[in-house]
Amino acid sequence: MAVQTVASTTDSTVDLGPAAALSCRECGHRVPLGPVFACEECFGPLEIAYDFSAYDTEELRKQIEAGPANIWRYAPLLPVPADVATKPNINPGWTQLVKADNLARELGVTGGLYVKDDSGNPTHSFKDRVVAQALEAARAFGFTTLSCSSTGNLAGAVGAAAARAGFRSCVFIPHDLEQGKVVMAAVYGGELVGIEGNYDDVNRFCSELIGDPAGEGWGFVNVNLRPYYAEGSKTLAYEICEQLGWQLPDQLVVPIASGSQLTKIDKGLQELIKLGLVEDKPYKIFGAQAEGCSPVSTAYKAGHDVVRPQKPNTIAKSLAIGNPADGPYVLDIARRTGGAVEDVTDEQVVDAIKILARTEGIFAETAGGVTVGVTKKLIENGVLDPTLTTVVLNTGDGLKTLDAVAGTGLTATIRPNLDSFREAGLA
Amino acid sequence: MAVQTVASTTDSTVDLGPAAALSCRECGHRVPLGPVFACEECFGPLEIAYDFSAYDTEELRKQIEAGPANIWRYAPLLPVPADVATKPNINPGWTQLVKADNLARELGVTGGLYVKDDSGNPTHSFKDRVVAQALEAARAFGFTTLSCSSTGNLAGAVGAAAARAGFRSCVFIPHDLEQGKVVMAAVYGGELVGIEGNYDDVNRFCSELIGDPAGEGWGFVNVNLRPYYAEGSKTLAYEICEQLGWQLPDQLVVPIASGSQLTKIDKGLQELIKLGLVEDKPYKIFGAQAEGCSPVSTAYKAGHDVVRPQKPNTIAKSLAIGNPADGPYVLDIARRTGGAVEDVTDEQVVDAIKILARTEGIFAETAGGVTVGVTKKLIENGVLDPTLTTVVLNTGDGLKTLDAVAGTGLTATIRPNLDSFREAGLA
Repeated sequence: MAVQTVASTTDSTVDLGPAAALSCRECGHRVPLGPVFACEECFGPLEIAYDFSAYDTEELRKQIEAGPANIWRYAPLLPVPADVATKPNINPGWTQLVKADNLARELGVTGGLYVKDDSGNPTHSFKDRVVAQALEAARAFGFTTLSCSSTGNLAGAVGAAAARAGFRSCVFIPHDLEQGKVVMAAVYGGELVGIEGNYDDVNRFCSELIGDPAGEGWGFVNVNLRPYYAEGSKTLAYEICEQLGWQLPDQLVVPIASGSQLTKIDKGLQELIKLGLVEDKPYKIFGAQAEGCSPVSTAYKAGHDVVRPQKPNTIAKSLAIGNPADGPYVLDIARRTGGAVEDVTDEQVVDAIKILARTEGIFAETAGGVTVGVTKKLIENGVLDPTLTTVVLNTGDGLKTLDAVAGTGLTATIRPNLDSFREAGLA
Repeated sequence: MAVQTVASTTDSTVDLGPAAALSCRECGHRVPLGPVFACEECFGPLEIAYDFSAYDTEELRKQIEAGPANIWRYAPLLPVPADVATKPNINPGWTQLVKADNLARELGVTGGLYVKDDSGNPTHSFKDRVVAQALEAARAFGFTTLSCSSTGNLAGAVGAAAARAGFRSCVFIPHDLEQGKVVMAAVYGGELVGIEGNYDDVNRFCSELIGDPAGEGWGFVNVNLRPYYAEGSKTLAYEICEQLGWQLPDQLVVPIASGSQLTKIDKGLQELIKLGLVEDKPYKIFGAQAEGCSPVSTAYKAGHDVVRPQKPNTIAKSLAIGNPADGPYVLDIARRTGGAVEDVTDEQVVDAIKILARTEGIFAETAGGVTVGVTKKLIENGVLDPTLTTVVLNTGDGLKTLDAVAGTGLTATIRPNLDSFREAGLA
């Protein structure tokens, strides 16, 4: 993959609020804010460095609590200008943290079980959080086209956000994607380009385009805007703690695709501690994968520090990244916090989707089946402590992966009369 | 239809907050709160009569603003106990009121155009609002089973709410419904019973069941709990006004199925005026139907006071009620407020879905295509004033009616290289 290390449109006057610079996660080298994602010194991933020094804790808390019911209530902690809430964006976030008492009983959790239900976002997945961030970065850098490679949720999130903000969008997908997914991405009216090849071919092409004059003015949300994009996941940590009454949970169960979300949730929790918005105490982060794409779980169990790529084969397609970029960081966080990484079979994923729907009325995407299934397994194995406060993430909507539960159907068929009703044992 | 006029489990100690009694919409006859829906004197529809006399306007406003980000912020104005937010419910509402500047430009609206996007509710339709109310009534009356007849959105909303609240659910649908809709209703794990017959047969059977001992302890959300259920639609009016900064909009465009939603939005606006929460001023309510099921629009245009039933034939299935119970009330409100009732063809519905998605990134159900399409038509015909503040309702999610836009697809297919990209004119 061609790595672009020099910003093409860096502007020292760019206003992204408290974001001060880009900093390499590996070597700490700092560069000005710009549309770059890899360190020019060591090729490590760049992430946002902030200046939070001016904040008074209680004033900040008050400002957040008086903010809008979306991620922009946390604007002081994100790489966005202070007036971000006045700009056209799809305004995701502030989704429900459901106190899941029925699920807790089913799984034997006594310390308080919560489901953070991100199916409530505008396009019904957590991707709206990260795309909303990337959009503001694209605006700051003067980009006019929002783009990505995708096989699903991301395409819709980019299409919707671009439409609202008046950007052109151009989304690249494998040309032979299922018709339903194509419709969900196409309806927003942007360019939707089928690439003759598989998802790897699509990604390779996008990297080429970024390095070419034809890609000038294009913000690829998860490539040249990735440092900004990734920060969107911090808002999950912020919301969970605020919704718990400004407290850290004891345990979190988070899905792993690239691993970015899990690492940013940890970053968000650390920021809240440093800012004094929550009291410091230990918390454990557990990573969840599907067995058919479990490179991080496999490495965790083998005691490895590196992640060996796998060829994905699972119904949890939104998590099916065989070579997860943030895998080593996830291993580090799971071990450092006393958590773990676990995986479940596709059958267990489907069972868990049904358990969550039956107990809490939440219809989750397969990724939600993965986290609930892993939670169940970790409790059964004695790894997750049922007497502690636990938050499980559902990052998407069951309507997008209906096939997973296609076997579900009528419990009875009767004639339209009371005799038939009684015969069926329904009375 | 067998009309049950006497409450089977009326309890004078039932606590439903400010709800004081049931009152007949036709003759004003009052009866105690109970699971009844038709007046014992004249068979007119019963609705909730409130006692709001104790409220101080500014205290009430403060209480609402400090409330949760869901419909329970309006608990003092709803037939629910004061502590409703602590009970297990799916907590719908406080959905986005989107300032639709791009759509406004497209339609030529200069006075401010907003889309109230109810696809953000837990099961992604406004039905969550009404079912959440019915659930609290069911709890108050000691019911243990939540039920309904449905062909779509309502089945999912009832299944989800019952699961969360620990109720049994038993939903009746025509046995030959499309598999996708069956899955969306079945996943919550309640009883899902196919009736050998059409939707009318299903309804007739449900009425029989209510009158039979087998139906004891059953709350049919849209039959014996209908007076409570219907009040959920008032929250749309409350939210719109609060989100506009406690102001009435000048014009509202509301879909018509049974007509209940439109009449309750009017009731909600009137309550806000009487309570002093908004300044009194004229507003116009416009009703929207699909041409293939336009009994109210037809009556409006003909100058009739009564509505002649139609046999529905439209893709807007969630609005396809050929004999709308509240049709005459809708006609009255449209005429009294200076609004109108209009309809659009299925082709215009599909076009409007695409316009809304392309301009605002909102993927609406067919019902949203109806309201946006009717708004466009009313502006073109000079009936709706584009210089006034206008709110258009989207009551459901496009993911539930994907077939309507199935024709949408790739804008280009290319090989994975820059030459092919340039040849396609995408640069």
